Amino acid sequence: MISNPFTGIEELLQIHRKMGRYIHKTPVMTSRSFNQITGSECFFKCENFQRMGAFKMRGAINALLHLNPEEKLCGVATHSSGNFAQAMSLAASLSGVKATVIMPESASGVKKDAVRSYGGNIIECESTLKAREESLDKFISQTGAISLHPSNQKEVIDGNSTALIELLNEVKNLDTVIVPVGGGGLLAGTALAGKQINKNLEIYGAEPTNVNDAFLSLQTGIIQPPTNKFTIADGLKTNLGDKNFPIIKKWVNSILLVEEDEIIYAMKWIWERMKIIIEPSSAVAVAAILKSPHIFSGKKTGIILSGGNAELSKLPF
Amino acid sequence: MISNPFTGIEELLQIHRKMGRYIHKTPVMTSRSFNQITGSECFFKCENFQRMGAFKMRGAINALLHLNPEEKLCGVATHSSGNFAQAMSLAASLSGVKATVIMPESASGVKKDAVRSYGGNIIECESTLKAREESLDKFISQTGAISLHPSNQKEVIDGNSTALIELLNEVKNLDTVIVPVGGGGLLAGTALAGKQINKNLEIYGAEPTNVNDAFLSLQTGIIQPPTNKFTIADGLKTNLGDKNFPIIKKWVNSILLVEEDEIIYAMKWIWERMKIIIEPSSAVAVAAILKSPHIFSGKKTGIILSGGNAELSKLPF
Repeated sequence: MISNPFTGIEELLQIHRKMGRYIHKTPVMTSRSFNQITGSECFFKCENFQRMGAFKMRGAINALLHLNPEEKLCGVATHSSGNFAQAMSLAASLSGVKATVIMPESASGVKKDAVRSYGGNIIECESTLKAREESLDKFISQTGAISLHPSNQKEVIDGNSTALIELLNEVKNLDTVIVPVGGGGLLAGTALAGKQINKNLEIYGAEPTNVNDAFLSLQTGIIQPPTNKFTIADGLKTNLGDKNFPIIKKWVNSILLVEEDEIIYAMKWIWERMKIIIEPSSAVAVAAILKSPHIFSGKKTGIILSGGNAELSKLPF
Repeated sequence: MISNPFTGIEELLQIHRKMGRYIHKTPVMTSRSFNQITGSECFFKCENFQRMGAFKMRGAINALLHLNPEEKLCGVATHSSGNFAQAMSLAASLSGVKATVIMPESASGVKKDAVRSYGGNIIECESTLKAREESLDKFISQTGAISLHPSNQKEVIDGNSTALIELLNEVKNLDTVIVPVGGGGLLAGTALAGKQINKNLEIYGAEPTNVNDAFLSLQTGIIQPPTNKFTIADGLKTNLGDKNFPIIKKWVNSILLVEEDEIIYAMKWIWERMKIIIEPSSAVAVAAILKSPHIFSGKKTGIILSGGNAELSKLPF
């Protein structure tokens, strides 16, 4: 049986209440300069200040909170080299559950250390997607661990929705909201909460042109595979899935594309002017507003700054 | 007549109320990791989020607010290549007053652009302190402009005191507070408000060992000249003055010294873990806590993160 991905707003609000003690209620920041440049009154929801440095903590903790006692004993596992690996490790650790992350050998030491620092165990494999999936399947069949998906899982999408719930609690009468889209978990969660709270709220995704699979998926109505091209916003290379795409298809106004140099410009702008660290994926949403101010001008706009785990030794500026 | 630098607390509170519409009430951040490492419950007052990116805005706007209408017509001037030049330019602009900054030819284009962006006029001179002072004197004698000092002026010290006033309004029962010390304006302002609000509050300054003139001044009881050595915390190269030293001598517990590598480590730690951008001078106070946790352990500690104007193209990591 396919579960209905359209979780109702009452349940989302309950989820938000239940996860409260495990997450930060992140601050909302504003910038007069950014408002002047864009003509929009913008509210930045700072998930870069979330625990482990990204919104992924929300989906991960909700997934963990939905496990029953037997499942908890089996532990959880995922294959990821990014923020979800850290989020699942921390969420599992807080829940007293064992976490195992399948990571490509080629993943940076910084990322491996981060997973370990949050209590996750690492199993290394070859760097191909096939090797990662096979390693995960093998681990799960051997241990009975519960597999968690970084973006295409109902509990993860529901958990992610809570960032916008908090933003709408704090800032009334937003007209529009924009978030970066990679695997689609944040965009789907945002649309899910946003449209049920205010059906007139406009929902935008922002994606690098180089990895425009979500844009093409929305255009064609069919999930498109990843382009496998380079983008500095490496957290957005993944493709949409069958749990989040129905929500995105129904409720997302459109997906805005930005170029690599526009992402870098936006990232530097936020660092220099707002004095906060955002990772390239977050800068994609900022870049989209700077590129298409006519969409946002005269409106109250929410932007979810998805994370702050930038590698300081590899800055593009 | 030498004016009494020990402004009473009622006047400081009134100053804070009057400047409210010109400054940001900056947020206070915390970090569980930092608390665990140091054994202290730490509260970071984020003046890196202040307008123009540093606490200097507080002193500058208070100085502008104290000018009478005739003085305002004469304009204000200073010699500075750092944050005070920007702060005075913005504060003057907000007050409808003309601002002129004497800057060394060698100052970076970024700094000159920043001053201009806030409405300040720049007069260039040779890079020596002598040339800067002479250029300023000449400009003042020609124009009648009012000279503002970045750190050794009563109104500037009083204005700076308001950062701690806000912090103590938000966090009750701080045991100790630490700020970086360069010219002494922030340290004196902090001590001035802190000791009058709670006479048991411990006040610490933090200074790079390479430019330890404030440390030596406090030890000898006599203002010492700058060492002229290199420090990455270039905002702290200036020496104390006759207006702020009496306050520092009376009310500062001690000045803690840190090495260059400790400053860089602390700066990187804050960037990576707290996801906020602080300039090297701010990292000096953070480094002092990391170096001497025994002083702060078991206490509630306030840290004023003085500014966030780091040059992204010149990072030490």
